[in-house]
Amino acid sequence: MLTCPISPLRPYTAATSGPLPALPSGPTPRRKDWSPTVKPTRDVYVVGAYNTDFIGKFHPDFIWKKHPDFGKKENPSLEDYVRTAALGALEDAGVAPAQIQKGFVGNFVGELFNNQGHLGSVLAGAHPDLANKAFSRVEGACASGALALVNGIDAISAGYDYVLVVGAEMQTTVNAKEGADYLARASHYKTQRDIDPFTFPALFARRAKAYMEAFDFSHADLAKVVVNAYANGNKNPKAHMKTVSMPLEKAAEASDKNPAFLSNEELKPWLKVSDCSQVSDGGSAVVLVSAEGLKKLGKDPKDAVQIVSYGHATGAIEGPSDLTEMDVTAAAAKEAYADAGVSAGDVQVAEVHDCFAIAQVLAMEALGFAEKGKAKEQLIEQNAFAIEGKIPVNTGGGLMSFGHPVGATGVKQAGEIYRQMLGRCGDYQVPGEPTLGLAQNMGGDDRTAVVTIFRRGS
Amino acid sequence: MLTCPISPLRPYTAATSGPLPALPSGPTPRRKDWSPTVKPTRDVYVVGAYNTDFIGKFHPDFIWKKHPDFGKKENPSLEDYVRTAALGALEDAGVAPAQIQKGFVGNFVGELFNNQGHLGSVLAGAHPDLANKAFSRVEGACASGALALVNGIDAISAGYDYVLVVGAEMQTTVNAKEGADYLARASHYKTQRDIDPFTFPALFARRAKAYMEAFDFSHADLAKVVVNAYANGNKNPKAHMKTVSMPLEKAAEASDKNPAFLSNEELKPWLKVSDCSQVSDGGSAVVLVSAEGLKKLGKDPKDAVQIVSYGHATGAIEGPSDLTEMDVTAAAAKEAYADAGVSAGDVQVAEVHDCFAIAQVLAMEALGFAEKGKAKEQLIEQNAFAIEGKIPVNTGGGLMSFGHPVGATGVKQAGEIYRQMLGRCGDYQVPGEPTLGLAQNMGGDDRTAVVTIFRRGS
Repeated sequence: MLTCPISPLRPYTAATSGPLPALPSGPTPRRKDWSPTVKPTRDVYVVGAYNTDFIGKFHPDFIWKKHPDFGKKENPSLEDYVRTAALGALEDAGVAPAQIQKGFVGNFVGELFNNQGHLGSVLAGAHPDLANKAFSRVEGACASGALALVNGIDAISAGYDYVLVVGAEMQTTVNAKEGADYLARASHYKTQRDIDPFTFPALFARRAKAYMEAFDFSHADLAKVVVNAYANGNKNPKAHMKTVSMPLEKAAEASDKNPAFLSNEELKPWLKVSDCSQVSDGGSAVVLVSAEGLKKLGKDPKDAVQIVSYGHATGAIEGPSDLTEMDVTAAAAKEAYADAGVSAGDVQVAEVHDCFAIAQVLAMEALGFAEKGKAKEQLIEQNAFAIEGKIPVNTGGGLMSFGHPVGATGVKQAGEIYRQMLGRCGDYQVPGEPTLGLAQNMGGDDRTAVVTIFRRGS
Repeated sequence: MLTCPISPLRPYTAATSGPLPALPSGPTPRRKDWSPTVKPTRDVYVVGAYNTDFIGKFHPDFIWKKHPDFGKKENPSLEDYVRTAALGALEDAGVAPAQIQKGFVGNFVGELFNNQGHLGSVLAGAHPDLANKAFSRVEGACASGALALVNGIDAISAGYDYVLVVGAEMQTTVNAKEGADYLARASHYKTQRDIDPFTFPALFARRAKAYMEAFDFSHADLAKVVVNAYANGNKNPKAHMKTVSMPLEKAAEASDKNPAFLSNEELKPWLKVSDCSQVSDGGSAVVLVSAEGLKKLGKDPKDAVQIVSYGHATGAIEGPSDLTEMDVTAAAAKEAYADAGVSAGDVQVAEVHDCFAIAQVLAMEALGFAEKGKAKEQLIEQNAFAIEGKIPVNTGGGLMSFGHPVGATGVKQAGEIYRQMLGRCGDYQVPGEPTLGLAQNMGGDDRTAVVTIFRRGS
């Protein structure tokens, strides 16, 4: 059924097809035209977070045919992940289910992996006191989790005081090739599906090729990004790849144990298994409250983490137009920094969407951690993104090693920043507890981007 | 693969499985604990709406193998519907795409019918000036459209001034039986899918059986609801069934032309084809603005329709617990009426989620248009829901005759109320232009419900 053209797709150049209707033209509202000028418009605090273990192939607890419990135990279901994450975050927050006023579930394709949509209703069944609450599911491919978070932030701004944000995905119901077809719904399926049986790995191999051809950047440089992720994940008891080691020599070159697996011959040399994030199952949740909510809970702002701004941008599904940069992430970052009144240099801990190693490189540049084409000399060579580095990135292992249960990822990122700021990260704790943090979650090939800025409450 | 048990499912009785964690108990926040007490917290106006034709089987423009254009023309795609609806609403509103600050797309299962998710990104490609805007997709089964609307209302409350709300579904890519399997993702698939190959028709046949056994209500009474929908749709040039007539004698009894099509023998007598809504393709959109936005557009509130409140409730996916009432819709309605300070008797025009004829009956009772079990004597016998009646319901034909492109429906309902209030409904215009309206959109078997109250601007 699939055809695998030799040449990859051309980058996207035009946003429209067919004539457009005669629409009024008008200026884009500038920030100062807005009422009010920054988001969120009411103070928003994270007061609790929970993460299930992220599991899948290579995780010791993942049940598959060679596991000793195979046939006796089953892996948790999508519903289990929604429920466990939600109740875990409420417990961590000390918030009663009855107090919750609104909730959002980030999930990408439960309809395909689990035959289950309508996850707002699944959340309503997680506890008797959650019945009749206002829940919905939000989707933006791999950015579904951060979109749930953004909707939660807006809900606080709109007047709510207690909001539950959940993200979950359970992907191990099918084999990798079928799963790749499901996940291709995040791309423009009609024109991008057939680039390779593994659509997204191929789209990011295309990015790696373009970047390495444009700049002084090698596979060995990319491997250092991978090694950092695994080193961090090895310190994280909840990480999917917690027991898998990734030495530089394994990550740097394709081999039998680390194959270049694409069928598209032009793109095949540009991606190995180790460059990819994991096909994981898992759930994450955070509880958001307003300043009034915080007060009513009897909590001190010092025990909470404030979300001081977010940026959210979306590009046409057929994109991107420039393979060597993430302009949608850059647009979201610009907005987030402006609203928070901070710049990239102020960030003390970051969660970055490393769905592929090259995505982390491009995202770090789009976020302003390095200039375009200079991630190598400004970040990677100094190991600046390590836990002890100047700007620790993905301290729990990121999507490559902590794992990537798609809809959970953006929520997990918020929980990770929260835990880092409260000094709860154990072996992967950043020294000195960071006070300003950032999370970047991305859907598709930089088509949806959310950048969120966090500050330790004071 | 499917098994069709003779007996239908038992109604749902318990909300939880397994032990719950030790969570704090706390009071449900009462309205007066909230800050602020009613939603929306800023004035919200509908200033433009657009609806594509809703098409499918039996519509003269729907391309299928016996259509003269078969092989020459194709039906519009999901992307076409998103784009056409969005740009049409902007044109109707006189709002430039560049002015839009945020947008939501309601869609249920594009991943299945169209292999396409990530519809926020699809919307970003609808016009060059929509690039980098903050768009996301919202899902709550057949209530996806109203959830997009609710998110839009909250966004205005949160501080935005120009918000675009789109709903779309394109379902005719597969046959009815396969489509029924896709739509079963709105139910609790694991325990409800196998009630019948047509899961949702069976779930509502179960409702019809319970209601008719509990109250003095016959198939002939139900047929009057169907006849009203078709009579209205016959006056609506955009309706899917605009050319199909439905006399009472056809709607009242199963026949070769109106078969009872379920396989589940216990439920089969309780549902005929004419009791069902349509498998339609289509798109709808509305533009929402704040009072400041309205002023900046140079519009008079009299040319707009205000959304004065909404209620949104969600019940556990395994529900319902009482087949003879819609308690989740009732909870949403209670909230919407309270926030608006009005009651059921004040409503002058209503859009009600008639996915099946019995659903309309139960919803009219849950909304307080009639007491429980009394829709027949209080509404149907007087034809009170007709365009000239005391409380006109589904004046454009509702889901049964206007059609039901799932994700579009909740957005279409808002557009319908807007058009009625501005006197734009042509042959199905309610005399005297109503000034207070209501829309009720429902996901699954009354698992997600949104009730919205509209008032003509003054």
